[in-house]
Amino acid sequence: MTKTDNGWLKSGVVGGAGSSGGIMETSPWQATRFRVRYAETDQMGVVYHSHYFVWFEVGRAELCRQRGLAYRDMEREGGIYIVVAEAHCRYKAPARYDDEIEVRTCLRAVRKRVLVFGYEVYRTSDGTLLAEGETTHVIAGPDGRPRALPEKYQRLFERGLDPTAISK
Amino acid sequence: MTKTDNGWLKSGVVGGAGSSGGIMETSPWQATRFRVRYAETDQMGVVYHSHYFVWFEVGRAELCRQRGLAYRDMEREGGIYIVVAEAHCRYKAPARYDDEIEVRTCLRAVRKRVLVFGYEVYRTSDGTLLAEGETTHVIAGPDGRPRALPEKYQRLFERGLDPTAISK
Amino acid sequence: MTKTDNGWLKSGVVGGAGSSGGIMETSPWQATRFRVRYAETDQMGVVYHSHYFVWFEVGRAELCRQRGLAYRDMEREGGIYIVVAEAHCRYKAPARYDDEIEVRTCLRAVRKRVLVFGYEVYRTSDGTLLAEGETTHVIAGPDGRPRALPEKYQRLFERGLDPTAISK
Amino acid sequence: MTKTDNGWLKSGVVGGAGSSGGIMETSPWQATRFRVRYAETDQMGVVYHSHYFVWFEVGRAELCRQRGLAYRDMEREGGIYIVVAEAHCRYKAPARYDDEIEVRTCLRAVRKRVLVFGYEVYRTSDGTLLAEGETTHVIAGPDGRPRALPEKYQRLFERGLDPTAISK
Repeated sequence: MTKTDNGWLKSGVVGGAGSSGGIMETSPWQATRFRVRYAETDQMGVVYHSHYFVWFEVGRAELCRQRGLAYRDMEREGGIYIVVAEAHCRYKAPARYDDEIEVRTCLRAVRKRVLVFGYEVYRTSDGTLLAEGETTHVIAGPDGRPRALPEKYQRLFERGLDPTAISK
Repeated sequence: MTKTDNGWLKSGVVGGAGSSGGIMETSPWQATRFRVRYAETDQMGVVYHSHYFVWFEVGRAELCRQRGLAYRDMEREGGIYIVVAEAHCRYKAPARYDDEIEVRTCLRAVRKRVLVFGYEVYRTSDGTLLAEGETTHVIAGPDGRPRALPEKYQRLFERGLDPTAISK
Repeated sequence: MTKTDNGWLKSGVVGGAGSSGGIMETSPWQATRFRVRYAETDQMGVVYHSHYFVWFEVGRAELCRQRGLAYRDMEREGGIYIVVAEAHCRYKAPARYDDEIEVRTCLRAVRKRVLVFGYEVYRTSDGTLLAEGETTHVIAGPDGRPRALPEKYQRLFERGLDPTAISK
Repeated sequence: MTKTDNGWLKSGVVGGAGSSGGIMETSPWQATRFRVRYAETDQMGVVYHSHYFVWFEVGRAELCRQRGLAYRDMEREGGIYIVVAEAHCRYKAPARYDDEIEVRTCLRAVRKRVLVFGYEVYRTSDGTLLAEGETTHVIAGPDGRPRALPEKYQRLFERGLDPTAISK
């Protein structure tokens, strides 16, 4: 993706370009957009860094929804909780108030007890890459104990993964 | 309280001055202190206004604790949830990053199904009143339905109220 | 608006019904939609109350934008800051994770140094009114001192107000 | 440090044990304590993961303060901004509402344009390690451009570093 390319789909699956990123980025990227809230800025005049992890969650929820998985229902009906085990973000350029943001999310790994998501955060007005990140999640039951991801969910998640990337 | 008076107790009951405030402010004020976090500032260089409601909650929890009521245990053991029904804040002066803040909390009304808390927020370095607020809460069970506050909690809350202020 | 009416415009001006609310609610309501983020929930399983004030801000920004006023530019170019002086919210029903929310915003008063905004928060899936609120703002310069709202902004804000509601 | 050891200093420099951690953890750990706020929990009943990065910031500010560096003054007087370039957290066990938290912070590297901080988050009641993290920061001026850390700040930061760890 070039910096000037900002003709992305609105909350749709991003075709082509994004999925060519190499070994790790094996699933189609899911894009979702929103504007920076004033509450998210800090006195440096930019978005405070912890909010990117909230944006990652927005992207993650949207990716699940696009695969027919409402995370809300996974918790309520399935008793499946996706717990964050690790979170990482590299900040490239500041996001500012009222910027329209696009979070692009992909699934990097689907295992019985672990999911790995990757993220890219762009400013849509000029296509600047603002941040990149990754979160690793373990599957837990309502008691907080690790459990295996039920097969039906696993299959739905794997659908978007490149077959060569699936590991168990 | 004068602006230069900042000899408050740290997380203790505030004697005298604070409780002379009139008809509504009938219980001793409970004071708690902390510093403004960078994450709480916005690009205007001051604390974003919604965070004062979080600070009110910190004050409320401390007031409960001082009366031997861990709100955590009320939820866990008592199945009692104190749900916010109304929240109000008047902002007088801005709080800034790293300011030491004192939240003074009082109970303004204790009824079977309703609690009213009052708040004052000060900057301790110069005693400036930054904000005043009030929150009204209804008592609910784990199902979210209104229920009466059990008598033992009601008695503990009322203890700090001036007898003339108790209404049922 | 009835509880079952959820055929609102997406981020558009809400026609008719909303503006019939009486003396205070004199401007057309501006509607904007988004989903509840997981980060906004608390351990009661509902949205933590302080986030409604952030949602009000989202509604406020959208109302400004619809009138050709990017609040971002007011700050940057005009040196005009809209500072919150008072905030109030009444909570009617809980918002939950992943609910689609509609914030409807109106201007209740435009004065030389003061703006008053009103808000209604709905769950779009069933049209339930979740909360109502109001915020009062004073106009300040970059130094934080009160100043008059420049005429061009005042005119833009007043445009949406019923003429009988304008006071100076 | 063993899991049952919770006799830490309150907001003081942690002696001995903490600084024996190996090659990377070369500076004395700085400890600071606070309670989990209700607003920081999510519907899973635990602290939402992004808040740990805010806690890291609280620890970082306290470490600076202990070295005679008010970060607030670095910005205001020195025109020095410490911008987050990378943030990482590994979550070990959930923090819950009202838990008393201790954040232990150390400086892992001090370079002309880069600072690296390390963190450990403990629950004080039982000494459980809840999370570990690291943040990398670049020094910037008021214009957001990278600049060198002035020598006086560099010396103050380096003071706590083991001499063998200082790199330029």
